[in-house]
Amino acid sequence: MSTARLEAFSDGVFAIAITLLVLDLHAPARPGHLAEALGKEWPHYATFVVSFLTIGIIWVNHHSQFSIVSRVDRPMLFINLFLLMVVVFIPFPTGLLADHLQNGSDQHIAAAVYSATLLVMGIAFFANWRYAAAHSQLLHAEMSPAQIRRLVNRNILGLAPYALAVGFAFVSAPLSLAICGAVAVYYVFPGRLPEHDAQAAGSA
Amino acid sequence: MSTARLEAFSDGVFAIAITLLVLDLHAPARPGHLAEALGKEWPHYATFVVSFLTIGIIWVNHHSQFSIVSRVDRPMLFINLFLLMVVVFIPFPTGLLADHLQNGSDQHIAAAVYSATLLVMGIAFFANWRYAAAHSQLLHAEMSPAQIRRLVNRNILGLAPYALAVGFAFVSAPLSLAICGAVAVYYVFPGRLPEHDAQAAGSA
Amino acid sequence: MSTARLEAFSDGVFAIAITLLVLDLHAPARPGHLAEALGKEWPHYATFVVSFLTIGIIWVNHHSQFSIVSRVDRPMLFINLFLLMVVVFIPFPTGLLADHLQNGSDQHIAAAVYSATLLVMGIAFFANWRYAAAHSQLLHAEMSPAQIRRLVNRNILGLAPYALAVGFAFVSAPLSLAICGAVAVYYVFPGRLPEHDAQAAGSA
Amino acid sequence: MSTARLEAFSDGVFAIAITLLVLDLHAPARPGHLAEALGKEWPHYATFVVSFLTIGIIWVNHHSQFSIVSRVDRPMLFINLFLLMVVVFIPFPTGLLADHLQNGSDQHIAAAVYSATLLVMGIAFFANWRYAAAHSQLLHAEMSPAQIRRLVNRNILGLAPYALAVGFAFVSAPLSLAICGAVAVYYVFPGRLPEHDAQAAGSA
Repeated sequence: MSTARLEAFSDGVFAIAITLLVLDLHAPARPGHLAEALGKEWPHYATFVVSFLTIGIIWVNHHSQFSIVSRVDRPMLFINLFLLMVVVFIPFPTGLLADHLQNGSDQHIAAAVYSATLLVMGIAFFANWRYAAAHSQLLHAEMSPAQIRRLVNRNILGLAPYALAVGFAFVSAPLSLAICGAVAVYYVFPGRLPEHDAQAAGSA
Repeated sequence: MSTARLEAFSDGVFAIAITLLVLDLHAPARPGHLAEALGKEWPHYATFVVSFLTIGIIWVNHHSQFSIVSRVDRPMLFINLFLLMVVVFIPFPTGLLADHLQNGSDQHIAAAVYSATLLVMGIAFFANWRYAAAHSQLLHAEMSPAQIRRLVNRNILGLAPYALAVGFAFVSAPLSLAICGAVAVYYVFPGRLPEHDAQAAGSA
Repeated sequence: MSTARLEAFSDGVFAIAITLLVLDLHAPARPGHLAEALGKEWPHYATFVVSFLTIGIIWVNHHSQFSIVSRVDRPMLFINLFLLMVVVFIPFPTGLLADHLQNGSDQHIAAAVYSATLLVMGIAFFANWRYAAAHSQLLHAEMSPAQIRRLVNRNILGLAPYALAVGFAFVSAPLSLAICGAVAVYYVFPGRLPEHDAQAAGSA
Repeated sequence: MSTARLEAFSDGVFAIAITLLVLDLHAPARPGHLAEALGKEWPHYATFVVSFLTIGIIWVNHHSQFSIVSRVDRPMLFINLFLLMVVVFIPFPTGLLADHLQNGSDQHIAAAVYSATLLVMGIAFFANWRYAAAHSQLLHAEMSPAQIRRLVNRNILGLAPYALAVGFAFVSAPLSLAICGAVAVYYVFPGRLPEHDAQAAGSA
């Protein structure tokens, strides 16, 4: 199977999941107190931004990934489907974390579910890489084994902060969210990737 | 009509229907009882996963189907539209089954509606095949009549477990859901299809 | 502007609007009365099917229309945007009609709003045709003036049943819905269009 | 990176955000008072139309923009992602303004949030232009520096009415909405752009 329709379908899922995040924004206000009500919703804005950037970045990286993959076989199709299932799921823990970010013991559960979801997303993305790297007939010819190994290693490293965020969820939910946000911001700023590799793959 | 825009539109509908499944996930919790509330929502996670995989697989198979269809005429366009109507409908019985999976006599109704929906989806998918097989001018040249017959037969077989799930709905809703889930898992694992046919068509 | 990105964007909007229709399906049930509750929701299934088919057919016809349009200018872009606005709006009167299909005097208002929406959609679709026909430099060369005139006339005729449905809304909402449904079913069955024109344009 | 997948993803997000606007339309009515209830919802129709046209126009302009951009680098990818984040956000202030358009002091807050969102969207769009103009290797060859400068300047001017709308929000919310609507209507009518530039870029 060529990668074109897989990319189109994935783009569709990314685009919809990222847009559904807005359905979590509400500001129920008593008359005359809208500004206050909007202010109290800050956990929803914070999780909206972090989840939006995270899905946006996984989209950018998915794009980069498939620029070096030339063919998709059935296992890879389903690894990708699993990745999409996690992405589709993201609006749920996003709303959950926003609802409970400041709520006593519940904040820890909510933050753990949220950051664990991002960790599983990272693992699914990594599995995609791992599988492609092990089946070089699926890749475009121009990647050397050393380049492939470097990309795979970098992807493992990308999982560490999410694992950290799961752990810190039990200390403080806002801190856990901040770690997830920092990962997103890190990738947003340019120059984080060696120019050559970025050109070749723009890996995560 | 070329198949390109039909596939693009279908991909869009599949992508949106699969993503809307997340809107069924909620976890209303009394303060301090979030973990418990999340646990009690397991029927929603179970139906989310089964419906996600089912739509995902029908997408993969739709893709395979159209890799051997070269042209679409008006009847086929509307058979496909009927298939999409069933796919769009899926989030409704998914939520219904999740809400009633453990509820006395209602579970049987809900499970029957759910598995019947998947059965009708399978029938619509089969009708697409049947019509294409009977109008070989719509297919790419390289399919032999024997290959076409094999694909059609395999599709009929694919309907059997869903019919079974409708029947078992009146015994136990979780069992009925498990059968639907097993169908999805069956197709996820690679090697289920003879290599040659998979290459040629990847049929369901 | 080439028509490719306009068609892609329109397909996206059609696909999403058609899929959002499912969000109107609910079946709140007292324990043990799910079958009854599902039965009482029939107005929602009826409007779901009619709206789904109507959007599906307008999509098919939009596709046909753009198979004879080769270029899009700015006015046509905005006529198309207006058509999409009406399509996006459809889930609202769909839910409205379902909620009030059996409710005394309210049914007339709801049915009038519903069928008027479909009428306005038809007018927007017709305006697209009318504009394209008047600017033949936007069309592919192979259409003769007589063919174009025939297509335009057929589109005007297509508006009549919707106008009728608006009128009959004040007699009976189910009747008005049935007329809208009959329009959809009419176009679904093949052979309604002269073969040659169907090939050339498949107009509404 | 080629612009094709970026445009496809952006189109998807535009299409979904524009379609989700319909979810804000409701008409809760006491039996027998549907017409009255529908009438009272006019702020929702007004904001629906203004937001729909605004997103539609930003889509048209985004399309124009990328017709002169030939390549996208990582910074531009993220500027575009920020633009999409604002677009995805729009349904929230749209509903907010509709809910509070006639509510005492709250109307000012709601209108300020709404028009500020459109202003930020305009700034993000402008930033996209600004960045592209400063990196001419990303553009197709045929743009002269004078043309680029003219486009950039016109985009700055496009921000002025939104800034005005933020200011007037504190005078009257309907007036602020009317200014935003006037911007949309201004761009809808043809002939607003010098023919040559429109051909080359159709800038905002």
